[in-house]
Amino acid sequence: MALPHAKPGTVVDVRPLGRAIANTSTATLVKTDTLEVIRIVMPVGKDIPRHNVPGEITVQCLEGNVEFHIGELKRELTAGTLLYLEGADEHWLHANEDSSLLVTILLTHKASHRNDGALEPCPFCAR
Amino acid sequence: MALPHAKPGTVVDVRPLGRAIANTSTATLVKTDTLEVIRIVMPVGKDIPRHNVPGEITVQCLEGNVEFHIGELKRELTAGTLLYLEGADEHWLHANEDSSLLVTILLTHKASHRNDGALEPCPFCAR
Repeated sequence: MALPHAKPGTVVDVRPLGRAIANTSTATLVKTDTLEVIRIVMPVGKDIPRHNVPGEITVQCLEGNVEFHIGELKRELTAGTLLYLEGADEHWLHANEDSSLLVTILLTHKASHRNDGALEPCPFCAR
Repeated sequence: MALPHAKPGTVVDVRPLGRAIANTSTATLVKTDTLEVIRIVMPVGKDIPRHNVPGEITVQCLEGNVEFHIGELKRELTAGTLLYLEGADEHWLHANEDSSLLVTILLTHKASHRNDGALEPCPFCAR
């Protein structure tokens, strides 16, 4: 069952899942007109194909180890590290370990969303 | 010396500071036209007086224990918990322990910023 989205002021648990990661799905924790916060669960070996989102995003690794590819750049995210991307930056991810990520997406550029034919549909922004 | 703001794709360390918290100041990690990410360091006993910011914010406790007051509501943030606030929600904070918080601020409502006489100036948004 999907978790309900948090209301303003509701305390949300984003601690590492540990062994529970095997039984936990990606979930949207917060969703408003301008902000979306998602906990993405990536089992080892999983890829999220190349995509972009129109607004800026921050990606914080809560646990595990994820390769984060931005164009030709490759970054490694381990627990307690974070990066941000400007809107429209193409990126793809690969999980080197069972991992979870806290992703914060600004929906401010929703109106300018584009997803040209060369890109996979964005898995987080399909609307 | 202030840390330079991260560029897109730069990996930023947001692990708990542990004992280094005593020698670490609040720092802006990311700043763009629409997004600001700040690590706020609050020594035990410190208050951040009542204020609001125009855009939505998320507040994630990285370590410690912070009372988060929203109007008449009181929430407790411990390591690995997060809440969000809608723009303009008045709030104030008190650190029950040496604590650090990762605060993400949407600057999308910058133009509508208001700070009426009853409120303390916002410490994060003084521009």
